[in-house]
Amino acid sequence: MKDINVGLIGLGTIGKGVYEALLSNCDILSKRTGLNIAVTAVCEKDKNAIKAVNPDKSVKVLSLEEIVKAEDVDVIVELMGGINPAKEVLINALKNKKHVVTANKALLSDHSKEIFTVAEENNRVVCFEASVGGAIPVIRVLRESFVANNIDTIYGILNGTTNYILSEMADKAYSFEKALKIAQEKGIAEKDPDLDVSGKDSAHKLAILSILGFGSQVCSEDIYTEGIESLSPQDIDNAKKWGYSVKLLAIAKNTSKGLQLRVHPTLLPVTHLLSDVNEADNAVFIKGDLIGESLLFGKGAGSKPTASSVIADIVSAGKIISSGEKNTDEKMVYSSQEFNLDKIEDLEVSFYLRFSVIDKPGVLAGISSVLAKNDISIANVAQEERNMGETVPVIILTHMAKEGDMKKAVEEINKLDCISADTVVIRIEE
Amino acid sequence: MKDINVGLIGLGTIGKGVYEALLSNCDILSKRTGLNIAVTAVCEKDKNAIKAVNPDKSVKVLSLEEIVKAEDVDVIVELMGGINPAKEVLINALKNKKHVVTANKALLSDHSKEIFTVAEENNRVVCFEASVGGAIPVIRVLRESFVANNIDTIYGILNGTTNYILSEMADKAYSFEKALKIAQEKGIAEKDPDLDVSGKDSAHKLAILSILGFGSQVCSEDIYTEGIESLSPQDIDNAKKWGYSVKLLAIAKNTSKGLQLRVHPTLLPVTHLLSDVNEADNAVFIKGDLIGESLLFGKGAGSKPTASSVIADIVSAGKIISSGEKNTDEKMVYSSQEFNLDKIEDLEVSFYLRFSVIDKPGVLAGISSVLAKNDISIANVAQEERNMGETVPVIILTHMAKEGDMKKAVEEINKLDCISADTVVIRIEE
Repeated sequence: MKDINVGLIGLGTIGKGVYEALLSNCDILSKRTGLNIAVTAVCEKDKNAIKAVNPDKSVKVLSLEEIVKAEDVDVIVELMGGINPAKEVLINALKNKKHVVTANKALLSDHSKEIFTVAEENNRVVCFEASVGGAIPVIRVLRESFVANNIDTIYGILNGTTNYILSEMADKAYSFEKALKIAQEKGIAEKDPDLDVSGKDSAHKLAILSILGFGSQVCSEDIYTEGIESLSPQDIDNAKKWGYSVKLLAIAKNTSKGLQLRVHPTLLPVTHLLSDVNEADNAVFIKGDLIGESLLFGKGAGSKPTASSVIADIVSAGKIISSGEKNTDEKMVYSSQEFNLDKIEDLEVSFYLRFSVIDKPGVLAGISSVLAKNDISIANVAQEERNMGETVPVIILTHMAKEGDMKKAVEEINKLDCISADTVVIRIEE
Repeated sequence: MKDINVGLIGLGTIGKGVYEALLSNCDILSKRTGLNIAVTAVCEKDKNAIKAVNPDKSVKVLSLEEIVKAEDVDVIVELMGGINPAKEVLINALKNKKHVVTANKALLSDHSKEIFTVAEENNRVVCFEASVGGAIPVIRVLRESFVANNIDTIYGILNGTTNYILSEMADKAYSFEKALKIAQEKGIAEKDPDLDVSGKDSAHKLAILSILGFGSQVCSEDIYTEGIESLSPQDIDNAKKWGYSVKLLAIAKNTSKGLQLRVHPTLLPVTHLLSDVNEADNAVFIKGDLIGESLLFGKGAGSKPTASSVIADIVSAGKIISSGEKNTDEKMVYSSQEFNLDKIEDLEVSFYLRFSVIDKPGVLAGISSVLAKNDISIANVAQEERNMGETVPVIILTHMAKEGDMKKAVEEINKLDCISADTVVIRIEE
């Protein structure tokens, strides 16, 4: 039985989960892996967090500077989050010949090349299964199981908080604000929810998956990103009537024009498997030339699901240690392959449009002539409310159209006299 | 770049797929893995199959005896299927210090202990991702990604042929025989379909997943198995009216009474994700104490999807070779942990029952009194057809009841004068 000593940085929800799961499931872990994994040092500035974990007396409480070079630590588990000082901590740990396990998507999405170069120089690994999709093993599956595939498309629901909010809005007709408040009360949304609801968290995760899938060093800034803040239960309800759910999708496609990378609310047919992914669950579709289409579904966040992935990564590092540091990890995480970005203006999709119009004759003619002028053809129109002289919604579903054309058309339509509020535009995926 | 030489046994659909994918995707494979994987020898008794693959002149065509000890072969890929001589071939290859990749579920489900013992003695690995679920990475995910979990339940659709037949029966109201014929014409079902339609193939796969998930050396004979041969489109249509789909499920649960292992047609709520798994697709749910519930979905068979898994396994073996044979593979595949089987008679589920009754007053009273006597309570009854004196169907959905009680009740009911054919019994999972 080989001892694997873990230095755990960050004892928040996830850190506590890792500490506790390593204790509760140590029997099955050692039986399956031949490794005796134990936390030997922790680092956490919040004393209450340390108290909540109540580590064994043998566990050292160290500073950041101390833990990354502690002699009795083989693997550093970084769960502090954020870019600084996490980046420095990881790099120092690697230089001190520690393997690293991290759940830090913000850091990896934008600094992976630097970090993985240091890792290679020091013959150590950086494992990051927990950075995307909680318990969903998408990192390992992309890197190992689907290693023989040319990956074509990766898309899915990568953020549990927004999926929970959208589920509440769909099921209970809550406003975004009310659904967010409930999510915060339940601990599903953070006090400052911006990173989640703006789509940025999904973009970080999509960047990591794109690096692995396409071998291109994209970063989160390359990803066109829209959040869910401006969605109304009215739009979700309208979508349902037309046979669609509304999900915040992260989409990466390898097209002939380049990489198409985008995060935005999307109408999906209710028959699509992703339409059945509700609450805080996550799911990722991967399309490859050999596998066809494959889906991974599971808990996208939470203490125990994330701990499951962190511990699987500790085991991976532990096996390398027990093999005498024979690191055979593939190199796909820091390829610097050139790539073109497919501009969002060139995107061709169909659209859901909700116009706020003053109800009077000729309004639809005005809107549809602007759409026609911009090469946008209409698939369906509905104006269910009537209220002469007042604002009523008009819903239009379009055929496939260019994003750039749609932008121009909507700008022009928003200036029409009969339009009383900005038009709501949501993309549709079939 | 490390050369990995593959000896490929069996050049049928899968073997051809592996050979071709290794050629077509060799660039991306070597870039991602640092390995130069090439087939250097093949073994196939059907000369037409060899001709169809048209191997390069440098590839040797060898006999079974020759290929397992060929000096320029590092990894044996066994795709011949069946128990004999596949078992001997695998064992000889391991004794000759070859790593082994196999898709042979029948062999692994019942002989894994012997094979993995030889593998350990020779410090070589046996990789078998392609044995369950085609492109679905369930073996790797269970062994590596979910290694920290106590696994509670594994269930899913593990056979593409039967799922295709059931989809056709549901969509087009075809009989089992007609749907089977179409599946055979499309190459989805074998000429001799027994292994698939009887549920035995699903049982082989469930045995392998149970060994990995529960660490118990179960074999396919431990699994209660029913096929889909006696299902009628009428039952599938009735199920739909009540909000259920009909799927051939493989179910393994770790209960307080022991392992519950079963393969049988099952009514599933249409809102369940597995109800949306159609055609020849497969899907597996895994429940663990950390991950909660996780789903893997994808192509369950076919040349390219299976080749994807076979090649991922060749890469795993190749990494061990390039690390200097530092095999850190965990031991979970041949645990000989004692286990109890939960008897099928003790199973408690709700049931769908279709009685063929002679339409006359008092019939329902007769049936329901036998059910009541056996502690089975009724949730719903429907007799939609009326035809005095003729046979009409009566459908009953029950509350949770014991399988043993149900068996006794149905035996008694089948003997009633008013019953004109054996009662159809299908279990329901909620």
